[in-house]
Amino acid sequence: MPRVYNFCAGPATLPEPVLEQARDELLDYRGSGMSILESSHRGREYSAVHEEAEANLRELLCLDDDHAILFLQGGASTQFAMVPMNLLLPGETADYTDSGAWATKAIKEAKKIGTVNIAADCAADIPARVPRADNLALTQGAAYVHITSNETISGAQWKSFPEVDAPLVADMSSDILSRAFDASRFGLIYAGAQKNLGPAGMALVIIRRDLAERAPESLPTMFRYRTHIEKDSLFNTPPCFPIYIVMLVTRWLKNEGLENVFQRNVDKARKIYDVIDGSAFYRGTAAPEFRSDMNVTFGLPSEELEALFVKEADAAALKGLKGHRSVGGLRASIYNAFPVAGVDALVAFMKEFEAKHG
Amino acid sequence: MPRVYNFCAGPATLPEPVLEQARDELLDYRGSGMSILESSHRGREYSAVHEEAEANLRELLCLDDDHAILFLQGGASTQFAMVPMNLLLPGETADYTDSGAWATKAIKEAKKIGTVNIAADCAADIPARVPRADNLALTQGAAYVHITSNETISGAQWKSFPEVDAPLVADMSSDILSRAFDASRFGLIYAGAQKNLGPAGMALVIIRRDLAERAPESLPTMFRYRTHIEKDSLFNTPPCFPIYIVMLVTRWLKNEGLENVFQRNVDKARKIYDVIDGSAFYRGTAAPEFRSDMNVTFGLPSEELEALFVKEADAAALKGLKGHRSVGGLRASIYNAFPVAGVDALVAFMKEFEAKHG
Repeated sequence: MPRVYNFCAGPATLPEPVLEQARDELLDYRGSGMSILESSHRGREYSAVHEEAEANLRELLCLDDDHAILFLQGGASTQFAMVPMNLLLPGETADYTDSGAWATKAIKEAKKIGTVNIAADCAADIPARVPRADNLALTQGAAYVHITSNETISGAQWKSFPEVDAPLVADMSSDILSRAFDASRFGLIYAGAQKNLGPAGMALVIIRRDLAERAPESLPTMFRYRTHIEKDSLFNTPPCFPIYIVMLVTRWLKNEGLENVFQRNVDKARKIYDVIDGSAFYRGTAAPEFRSDMNVTFGLPSEELEALFVKEADAAALKGLKGHRSVGGLRASIYNAFPVAGVDALVAFMKEFEAKHG
Repeated sequence: MPRVYNFCAGPATLPEPVLEQARDELLDYRGSGMSILESSHRGREYSAVHEEAEANLRELLCLDDDHAILFLQGGASTQFAMVPMNLLLPGETADYTDSGAWATKAIKEAKKIGTVNIAADCAADIPARVPRADNLALTQGAAYVHITSNETISGAQWKSFPEVDAPLVADMSSDILSRAFDASRFGLIYAGAQKNLGPAGMALVIIRRDLAERAPESLPTMFRYRTHIEKDSLFNTPPCFPIYIVMLVTRWLKNEGLENVFQRNVDKARKIYDVIDGSAFYRGTAAPEFRSDMNVTFGLPSEELEALFVKEADAAALKGLKGHRSVGGLRASIYNAFPVAGVDALVAFMKEFEAKHG
């Protein structure tokens, strides 16, 4: 079967050369006589993988040693709890911005741990949007300010990040390394790997080292960032294979050139938005100024047409275009590794579909 | 490079046919036009993987629907905290048996959550052993009784399990599915996958459904077993690829026949113990009646000889025989997928080494 175009929101398309390399060395990792799946996490082969994954990310994000880079498990959903468990102490308040489904989940977990102030709420706005960076009701002396840089479900994205006094914390699961930004400005960034970084089963956490000192000693060892900082994410057996794929993906990113990838992302998204804007048949779900470059959400005049769109697209090897079950509509997720040719194929399909059914 | 014999304690040897199948379908999973690494966790292909992994485990462990089977992240180390967070309520006591390094870690985390009674302590005993099942100082009305079925580092293993009134909880990371036992008798079993089940990055949890009801609503959503039971381990994106390999490994186990695998494990271990017992040169680390079938630990007359043994074995493609850094000595980890031919090669090497240096 030739490769299809996979518009799924995550797990998502990986670079084909990464998959080919993983396949080619799956039984014998670099002459070691064993698979990387079987290699000890304390052995030479895996150690080199682990170190390169971290070094690649540090280079791509232009981070110095003030920030630790961690490979954890449990996805962003576990970070929803770990962030306040580590950073939100009794008597303190954390500012959260509610921009949609994922921010709401983060807020729900934070409220179990401590006091939360909603600094902005546009979770239910139609068209979808995120708060304005300059219009947040912040708490004086907040423990941190939390944002969700890209709402995967609604397709709304922060286009610039707020300037705040408190440490800025961001869930960047669906747009990490998709565009230029100053990571060093953040106190903590977390991201499930399965969109822009690799396969499911690993969460990237970037944390300013001094913030990790806040966590109470009473926290379970695995839920303290300090544990993983001190042991370079090797306190216990890490998710070796997902980290290995992240290493290959970040190596691929370096080879592609980040600036090229960033420009390609903008161009890819614009091609689809241009079809939407040039048509009365398609309507964009997100407000134009907050439109995501990663998750393009749109609708058709009826649910029947949307279902037909998904069905006919699927038959044309354009997979996974159905919107999230909670909101319906259509969604094209076009992360870093999603090929330009796939966007061109979708654009052609959208025009044809409109000509036939519009 | 031909395959080496990998005696590492975990991540560990996987069945070669599993690796071959994973390689062969890595770019195109069953005609889907995408890798299983890229497949949506809510899509048809991955759903079938997820369901088969659970069904295989349910069949192999002879479990009915009273127990839920969960695929979680964070390894056994996260379970050290999750077990007491979910099962040890204020005012209650949990009984723990301290049998060595891993049990000690479980106890450390439980003490952060609630009251712990040490029902037996032989963690520092030499030769290594586990407590006697009929000699535990149990608490009346304990929340549960925790054991570590096999101590990977010391090489001591419970040969029969205690009969207790409270729910029996076991860390079976290093011997799950290696021998016959009645899983339905347990309240909760957990196991990191990277020894007998698959690669690193997934923890199996088997829990009697009624026990999951005990957890306070205030727990973070991801740390509550009930969350994962209600969503069939799909509350958030699971570690899809590790679960896929577990599905292939459990399918392989079914094909091999569990009874054959169990007998092979006993035979493999006995071959190495026979060399140890028939020699004044090698000495076993664990007390004979508690010797592990999974991790055979032994020493030589001097540390220099042990280092030489590791070095010469390594050159003979017998990899990973160094004992855990915390205890030294030598260790041969011979899990389900470790081939008989590898044990034969080690036995021959041990005899040669003794002839040369004994």
